[in-house]
Amino acid sequence: MTNTQVTLVQVDNYGPWTVTPEPRREVDLQTLQSRLYADLSQLFGNREGYVFFTRFDNMIAVTNGLDREAHALIQESVANRYPVTVSLGVATDPSPAAALGDATNQLQAAGSAQDEDRTQILGGGFLAGADRTDADVQIAHFDVIDATGKYTDKLNAFDSFIRIEQGYAELMRHMRRAHDSLSFFVGGDNVIAVCPELTPAAYRDAIDHVAGEVDVDLQVGVGRARTAQDAGMRAKHALEECRHEGTAVEFGDGSHY
Amino acid sequence: MTNTQVTLVQVDNYGPWTVTPEPRREVDLQTLQSRLYADLSQLFGNREGYVFFTRFDNMIAVTNGLDREAHALIQESVANRYPVTVSLGVATDPSPAAALGDATNQLQAAGSAQDEDRTQILGGGFLAGADRTDADVQIAHFDVIDATGKYTDKLNAFDSFIRIEQGYAELMRHMRRAHDSLSFFVGGDNVIAVCPELTPAAYRDAIDHVAGEVDVDLQVGVGRARTAQDAGMRAKHALEECRHEGTAVEFGDGSHY
Amino acid sequence: MTNTQVTLVQVDNYGPWTVTPEPRREVDLQTLQSRLYADLSQLFGNREGYVFFTRFDNMIAVTNGLDREAHALIQESVANRYPVTVSLGVATDPSPAAALGDATNQLQAAGSAQDEDRTQILGGGFLAGADRTDADVQIAHFDVIDATGKYTDKLNAFDSFIRIEQGYAELMRHMRRAHDSLSFFVGGDNVIAVCPELTPAAYRDAIDHVAGEVDVDLQVGVGRARTAQDAGMRAKHALEECRHEGTAVEFGDGSHY
Amino acid sequence: MTNTQVTLVQVDNYGPWTVTPEPRREVDLQTLQSRLYADLSQLFGNREGYVFFTRFDNMIAVTNGLDREAHALIQESVANRYPVTVSLGVATDPSPAAALGDATNQLQAAGSAQDEDRTQILGGGFLAGADRTDADVQIAHFDVIDATGKYTDKLNAFDSFIRIEQGYAELMRHMRRAHDSLSFFVGGDNVIAVCPELTPAAYRDAIDHVAGEVDVDLQVGVGRARTAQDAGMRAKHALEECRHEGTAVEFGDGSHY
Repeated sequence: MTNTQVTLVQVDNYGPWTVTPEPRREVDLQTLQSRLYADLSQLFGNREGYVFFTRFDNMIAVTNGLDREAHALIQESVANRYPVTVSLGVATDPSPAAALGDATNQLQAAGSAQDEDRTQILGGGFLAGADRTDADVQIAHFDVIDATGKYTDKLNAFDSFIRIEQGYAELMRHMRRAHDSLSFFVGGDNVIAVCPELTPAAYRDAIDHVAGEVDVDLQVGVGRARTAQDAGMRAKHALEECRHEGTAVEFGDGSHY
Repeated sequence: MTNTQVTLVQVDNYGPWTVTPEPRREVDLQTLQSRLYADLSQLFGNREGYVFFTRFDNMIAVTNGLDREAHALIQESVANRYPVTVSLGVATDPSPAAALGDATNQLQAAGSAQDEDRTQILGGGFLAGADRTDADVQIAHFDVIDATGKYTDKLNAFDSFIRIEQGYAELMRHMRRAHDSLSFFVGGDNVIAVCPELTPAAYRDAIDHVAGEVDVDLQVGVGRARTAQDAGMRAKHALEECRHEGTAVEFGDGSHY
Repeated sequence: MTNTQVTLVQVDNYGPWTVTPEPRREVDLQTLQSRLYADLSQLFGNREGYVFFTRFDNMIAVTNGLDREAHALIQESVANRYPVTVSLGVATDPSPAAALGDATNQLQAAGSAQDEDRTQILGGGFLAGADRTDADVQIAHFDVIDATGKYTDKLNAFDSFIRIEQGYAELMRHMRRAHDSLSFFVGGDNVIAVCPELTPAAYRDAIDHVAGEVDVDLQVGVGRARTAQDAGMRAKHALEECRHEGTAVEFGDGSHY
Repeated sequence: MTNTQVTLVQVDNYGPWTVTPEPRREVDLQTLQSRLYADLSQLFGNREGYVFFTRFDNMIAVTNGLDREAHALIQESVANRYPVTVSLGVATDPSPAAALGDATNQLQAAGSAQDEDRTQILGGGFLAGADRTDADVQIAHFDVIDATGKYTDKLNAFDSFIRIEQGYAELMRHMRRAHDSLSFFVGGDNVIAVCPELTPAAYRDAIDHVAGEVDVDLQVGVGRARTAQDAGMRAKHALEECRHEGTAVEFGDGSHY
């Protein structure tokens, strides 16, 4: 069984800040949001975590390996360098979606995302070192088969984008509903999903579902390890196997389907 | 009539670079992609343009006001500071989608996105100063009515994300198909669309469509100006009017619906 | 005659901010300072200016080509993305040192650098377009002859640093006292000086002075143009000539000494 | 006795890269250098280290707490995100200067700083966990007494800079020669020195020396701990004591002089 520690990163009172005293320049908001995400990617990534930009004012991270002290350091570092602060809710569960639900509750219980008095919350359940195993995190890395040939080199760039967006939207809903998984678009034609313990058949099924619903053909590499970094790297290598072998589903342990 | 100058920014040979000699750490790719986008936001934004992250390896910008020399400077600056380079295709048309189609052709004609010999292309049609008017760019800034109350403070963070993602996916497809517009999620619950000359009824219609299809309620502020920065800021202020007046569609000139 | 527009960038109330409510982590202050400088380098550089990190809470820029509106945009962009704000004092004079003196007065007259009520000052004298010429800015780019062979590959890294630091300290004092010039260490073994109209003999003299006082051997390339970017690039190319020809002083127009 | 682990960070073949195929825009080099330093500040700082920008192409870090694996991760992260790579030489010694000398040898033995075939060296002596104590690192944080009142609010900004630069240059040479210490200007009017076990009298002496030679009045806070981060934060707090008590030398343990 997996045991995923999930952290919800929520920028405090961001909506109001963006329009006070009046609306701020969009290009500056985009710069701020992207750089905050990039910094969090390094801060969590330096300790083997993964973080996904999600909505930018709400970001989701897989943080097996980061304890309360590490989270506090990240929160402090952001407060020292940005004009905004972040609240962090943490929870652990075999189901990533359930863990995220608990993490979200941590913040909601403390106050609204747009409550100027609710800032820099840090709370929840951290996976104790003694309870950690090499099977805690399962990461699946999907990409579109030959996106460059089928879309990027052929269609208007926005139409390529629509096709990939539809594939992502269908996959994210299916993986959430059927498998309690959290899926994130990470650029190009790539989607990374954080899953509970799923079988190859479940992935085969997800791929067939997306192909059937929106006619987008995916392949996937899956990895399992102690941390998101490790599981994610195994998933990447497994995806390379899909590319070389022409298979649709490859697990980091060499099995394929 | 609008006259939108659109630039397609495509990272050269990115897919292969990310896995050569072997797959690179995901947290570093995320950092690289986000910071490249943030820098482009400043480089285009400093001259009144807007750029949207889109797929990160392919980004779309509205560049009325940036000539060939400005584009060359941006391209050179990226080459001086990143381990990758970018190609830029530019085109102008009253229809944003058509402009993007022509811009995409510029790059496709020169070679594949994954051709290691096709790098730093710069070509296309720049809107001459003498032809520019104060009505060249129409920007629409949508957001979800009370997203914080309905979703962020209530649901599991991924379910909030799914609702907003669905609203965006439905809006982007509709605006593209019915109105030749290019719509981009920009964080939080916000979507910015680059449109041709559309009437308030067209926006009313888009909002009704999204509400009907996926049950997500939007409001929109619309601005028109010489540059994306100006049009976008007018749209933001108009959106504030929606918030205060409780209207669904506000134009920067004070009319509402 | 040169006509240098100089801008003093001063972070508002920075000292107190770094220790309120208590001392902030040094690594975060270093990150903040360096990134603010990097962003200013792009903001000024995008419009052909140069900026030098100097003391990080006080930075000096050569801003021929940037008017009041451009300065206001830079100030606004910083306020949107950083937890601190900046004040900008501007002045123009054939003497760079005199221009900086006037620019400094702009800020000092408005209040102390550590006055929490003095923020985001923007004032001074901007060089009017009609008054600009191709000879407004003279930039000199010095480096140490064979620093790698003499120091970097031979000495303890701190001792290499001390040698270069001494060379810089001697040069900066001499150029200020004798020639009203502002000299800045820019990394490696490089120093860039902003000068009034100086003759080759003046540069020869400065080089001899430094060699005599601290036994550090310099060479220099000099450029003259309408903007810092242009003058600076000509100076860089002239410095390459020194390297190839073995000369000590090269001017961008081909003359050498 | 202290036991300082020092890392020399050297950008590989940087000089040639900056002028190939021809000189690169200075504002881009400044941006690149500053951001690389900022990233290293976070990468080392995330694990309780300190890094100083020094010459930007050669940077010095105090890395007690970072093992070989941590150094390799930092090196890999830079290679994934920058157009340059770094070599890392590491050594440990009670004397910071001696440790840096050994660290420098690591790189010099492998090849020149401007040898295109010498890249990404990683070697040296890492302080074993079992050998670490709470007294390994001594950090001294100096600043100029009332720099704002005496210089910043009174003098031309470059003349303030010259005064502070002279104070730094004198202090750095004295601390190196007399005490084997490495001193770094860190912005504003602050200098941080990495020292062996020094007595209050040694600091009193250094302050008197600088006042006598160049008429710049310093105060200093000193901290001792297991890591640079801890020792440095104690030093900062001790410096606050100097400010409040009017003393010249304060140790983190409460003693003053």
